Amino acid sequence: MSAFITIEGIDGSGKSTQTARLAQRLRRLAPEVVVSREPGGSPLGEALRTLLLARDRPIDPRAEALLLAAARADHVQTLIRPALSRDAIVVVDRFVDSSLAYQGYGLGLGVEWVLQINRFALATTLPPPATGPASEQAAECWPDLTVLLDLPVVVAQERFRQEGRDPDRVEARGTAYLERVREGYLQLAERWPQRISTVPAQGDKHEVESAIWQAVLQRWPQWASLASGTEAEGGTPL
Amino acid sequence: MSAFITIEGIDGSGKSTQTARLAQRLRRLAPEVVVSREPGGSPLGEALRTLLLARDRPIDPRAEALLLAAARADHVQTLIRPALSRDAIVVVDRFVDSSLAYQGYGLGLGVEWVLQINRFALATTLPPPATGPASEQAAECWPDLTVLLDLPVVVAQERFRQEGRDPDRVEARGTAYLERVREGYLQLAERWPQRISTVPAQGDKHEVESAIWQAVLQRWPQWASLASGTEAEGGTPL
Repeated sequence: MSAFITIEGIDGSGKSTQTARLAQRLRRLAPEVVVSREPGGSPLGEALRTLLLARDRPIDPRAEALLLAAARADHVQTLIRPALSRDAIVVVDRFVDSSLAYQGYGLGLGVEWVLQINRFALATTLPPPATGPASEQAAECWPDLTVLLDLPVVVAQERFRQEGRDPDRVEARGTAYLERVREGYLQLAERWPQRISTVPAQGDKHEVESAIWQAVLQRWPQWASLASGTEAEGGTPL
Repeated sequence: MSAFITIEGIDGSGKSTQTARLAQRLRRLAPEVVVSREPGGSPLGEALRTLLLARDRPIDPRAEALLLAAARADHVQTLIRPALSRDAIVVVDRFVDSSLAYQGYGLGLGVEWVLQINRFALATTLPPPATGPASEQAAECWPDLTVLLDLPVVVAQERFRQEGRDPDRVEARGTAYLERVREGYLQLAERWPQRISTVPAQGDKHEVESAIWQAVLQRWPQWASLASGTEAEGGTPL
């Protein structure tokens, strides 16, 4: 049975760590678990990532949003859809909600606009007919479950300072920007409560890992019986 | 007085030649005429053009459409808008209608979808407010006049053969594809009759040049008095 899970949140919320831990748990259930990240995740995505980072002048925000959507379209067509059609479980660190939160809410490009370009990126193209107008029907590749790791911005920034990491271009946009991004994520979770599960990310790694696992089991209750008996009954970390 | 003119049509319709000739005429009227082309026209656009051409595997059509829109957003923000605000006349060889015709109609991605992502690319971003939801108001940078050079596909292909040019990836998509593109262009001209002026491109270069100039004077009648007296009275090529 295929499944598509994305992990979202501001930098410092623990996405990378938790993506790896979740994948480890899922490997006990499924023959194939594919882990990826955005931006990147495909040859074109990695090329665009390099292009975005190599630039010395600031890139236009709309061009940035469109480049990220282009990389996502490639990621979906070359990696995610093929894996799902092989019945794999796919876990991706950042996906469409990052664009909605960062570019739509954070940069002020308008969440509905960013949603439109991303719906285009997530769609499947049907081959055009030999004659007559082309079909506009398309199925969109949305995650089955999105885990939003929610954290106050000041806590995320403090974690960064403690780790001695340099703020990159995105972080350098400042606290007000990151507050809009966090608030944007929470609005997305209100908009799509069936898809997005918000997990507080202030606790220690084991607590957060366990809370994520509960969110996964709520979406796929049948996985409880496949996992250990303890896990199914009490939610203790495996 | 600023003006934004785009030249469109399938390959072989004479766009490059006519863009150069039109620019030459306009230089007699205006202190600054900026000529550009797509894809390309800005550093990011040229980098993306290289990326698109350097790839050895076929790129996903949706990723391609989004990359072209990203390049267009950059082109608009870095070259076209600044030139228009300096009161220049801007002439661009291919612009948004190429995406609508080639990706929307030709590849069957759906013209309304391709229009949405391009409206996003053409918009101006207002800076987000310090607090509260970001504004979604934006002004879109559409051409004042688009000249569509219309030509039967077989004639365009015959011109290519005579010139001994190799079909590139786009041309290699075949005759049925190019027929959809041409038909798409004509539908766009029906949709936006105020903006798009269709000029038959089968005649010789001088005839086509003259017909384009008539289309320009129809949009800006005041330019007739700025040009030569002969031109204003009879439409004879300068």
